[in-house]
Amino acid sequence: MAKLYFRYSAMNAGKSTALLQVAHNYEEHGRKVRIFTAAIDRRFGDGLVTSRLGPQREVETFDDKTNFTEALGTDAADLSCLLVDESQFLTIDQVRDLHRIAHVTGVPIICYGLRSDFLGNPFPGAAHLLTLADSIEEIKTICACGRKATMNVRIDEHGKRITQGAQIAIEGETRYIQTCGRCFYSDA
Amino acid sequence: MAKLYFRYSAMNAGKSTALLQVAHNYEEHGRKVRIFTAAIDRRFGDGLVTSRLGPQREVETFDDKTNFTEALGTDAADLSCLLVDESQFLTIDQVRDLHRIAHVTGVPIICYGLRSDFLGNPFPGAAHLLTLADSIEEIKTICACGRKATMNVRIDEHGKRITQGAQIAIEGETRYIQTCGRCFYSDA
Amino acid sequence: MAKLYFRYSAMNAGKSTALLQVAHNYEEHGRKVRIFTAAIDRRFGDGLVTSRLGPQREVETFDDKTNFTEALGTDAADLSCLLVDESQFLTIDQVRDLHRIAHVTGVPIICYGLRSDFLGNPFPGAAHLLTLADSIEEIKTICACGRKATMNVRIDEHGKRITQGAQIAIEGETRYIQTCGRCFYSDA
Amino acid sequence: MAKLYFRYSAMNAGKSTALLQVAHNYEEHGRKVRIFTAAIDRRFGDGLVTSRLGPQREVETFDDKTNFTEALGTDAADLSCLLVDESQFLTIDQVRDLHRIAHVTGVPIICYGLRSDFLGNPFPGAAHLLTLADSIEEIKTICACGRKATMNVRIDEHGKRITQGAQIAIEGETRYIQTCGRCFYSDA
Repeated sequence: MAKLYFRYSAMNAGKSTALLQVAHNYEEHGRKVRIFTAAIDRRFGDGLVTSRLGPQREVETFDDKTNFTEALGTDAADLSCLLVDESQFLTIDQVRDLHRIAHVTGVPIICYGLRSDFLGNPFPGAAHLLTLADSIEEIKTICACGRKATMNVRIDEHGKRITQGAQIAIEGETRYIQTCGRCFYSDA
Repeated sequence: MAKLYFRYSAMNAGKSTALLQVAHNYEEHGRKVRIFTAAIDRRFGDGLVTSRLGPQREVETFDDKTNFTEALGTDAADLSCLLVDESQFLTIDQVRDLHRIAHVTGVPIICYGLRSDFLGNPFPGAAHLLTLADSIEEIKTICACGRKATMNVRIDEHGKRITQGAQIAIEGETRYIQTCGRCFYSDA
Repeated sequence: MAKLYFRYSAMNAGKSTALLQVAHNYEEHGRKVRIFTAAIDRRFGDGLVTSRLGPQREVETFDDKTNFTEALGTDAADLSCLLVDESQFLTIDQVRDLHRIAHVTGVPIICYGLRSDFLGNPFPGAAHLLTLADSIEEIKTICACGRKATMNVRIDEHGKRITQGAQIAIEGETRYIQTCGRCFYSDA
Repeated sequence: MAKLYFRYSAMNAGKSTALLQVAHNYEEHGRKVRIFTAAIDRRFGDGLVTSRLGPQREVETFDDKTNFTEALGTDAADLSCLLVDESQFLTIDQVRDLHRIAHVTGVPIICYGLRSDFLGNPFPGAAHLLTLADSIEEIKTICACGRKATMNVRIDEHGKRITQGAQIAIEGETRYIQTCGRCFYSDA
């Protein structure tokens, strides 16, 4: 009866905070969780889940080659929850594997991630999580205009919008802000 | 402030019933809606939205070439809602267009559709609706085992599962049943 | 693992349609459901659940004296779902009983109902359903102004708002319209 | 178009963490929020909202005599959000006032709180928030058995369940644990 959950949001909504709170809730009951984040995202250091409220925690990392079934191994039997941050970077095969682990092995899995990139295109991992998750929940945040933010915009070091480049650009001067649909289409 | 809604479910959950109810709710207030369904789906006839409870209604049809911005035309100004059934058959460009219509033109748009095909792969239109929708809501139904159904399985005229073939097969003897994640993997 | 669900809405949203669809979904799998509506609500006849789209169905009725544990009796063992329409008219004790039936006996229970009366005050049964339900879901509908309706307003035969009288008034010339919060406070 | 939100959960789910994150999200955009918590709840000190992950923050307090319309005063005009923690302790009149402030004055209001007390009875403030809120959202947490917790149980200093006493008992040795519906009834 375990389920695959996808909790999505735009940038800067508090996904990592929410993940750390869930881990805390399980561990307070003496239950075991395992936490992964993308090796690709080193904004705060390698293998760290960092809440913008302050708390952070060392976790395991995944990359394109991670096999979650193998990574869990015999651990799956006494695991109360698998938590994955930055889950938009999962491959399609990894999402299929996680879906199977939830339903066949019976480990509840909660993935936190973005839906779309700076051009409004889906991250393949996110699109498959949205397709297969038993439960899809939004973590809300706001656009600068006050409406709910659903989109992500890439900006340069001067705050100017960038509409070209690779889907993934995390390091260096590149930054992201979240916007509502209306502001996404205005040429701010 | 208009939004793009995606209301998804597995097969046989009551999507068309829900759509017809929403249209009725708007029209009871003297408000104008327009309704489209996929030209590809002729199970119940061309351009019909049919509730399995009985009611049905003639509606407009869309195919790969439909340009919704043009189809709405000047109508958009006094349109209270655009309803799309079988929205998993939308193209990616059509979904982008609908997202823009909701946010720039300001017409609320509610799309009803499936998420995944008989192999658990996303319909491209559905994946983009899940990625861009301002609100994602599930219409629930059950698996034969009693759990919530999230997946779709193709069966032949003898009820035997089919795991090969094109993503879209609607006519003839092909049929679909909805299953939970566990049953989807159990007799694959 | 059974749950108590409360699916609420303002007037005229399609609660009865939704209930009939769920019953159909269960019965299509050969599963047994039982359906109750309030004896107090005879707008469409005694013991009828009526969709404004057309379909209707004879069902059992409950009043203040109905004991659901007794009413289900040995039937509970092979019941896939108990559906209750007009559940705002349940007594507090009946809601507690239904919550216990879901969790101890293991029958999934889905209640459809209003939240508040024509003055914005809770129906006691609804307040307890909102308090105890494992899942709270909204069936949305619109106000005449186009916003989401959440409130109910009582009007007389001339469409004039009434702000005095008993909480329950169903028969005769009394009617109800649904409004958003803003229109509820304007003196329309 | 402002709304009244009620985000409920059982004890120990992370309501205060979620509130602090939302405040952070608004303030990061240079937007003004005001935060209130119940004067009655001094577990962590007077006028503190404390996340069990670590962060805490001094906030304003409300008691039975607080008039929110007066408390906001001319501030309402440039307030982006009013956040209320421990909102189950609001009076009925305060909830009505907040509902009116959201819809007439136009300030978005997000209330965090419990639904039911240690006997499964509603807190009056929570029952009215559930009745009037434009959006009801659950912050999930788990029971010791691993299921979703929805109920609260009062225990003494030895961990023994208490089923008598006043609805509100915060100070001293009294503590609370959250349980699922099944565990709530199992050892009553």
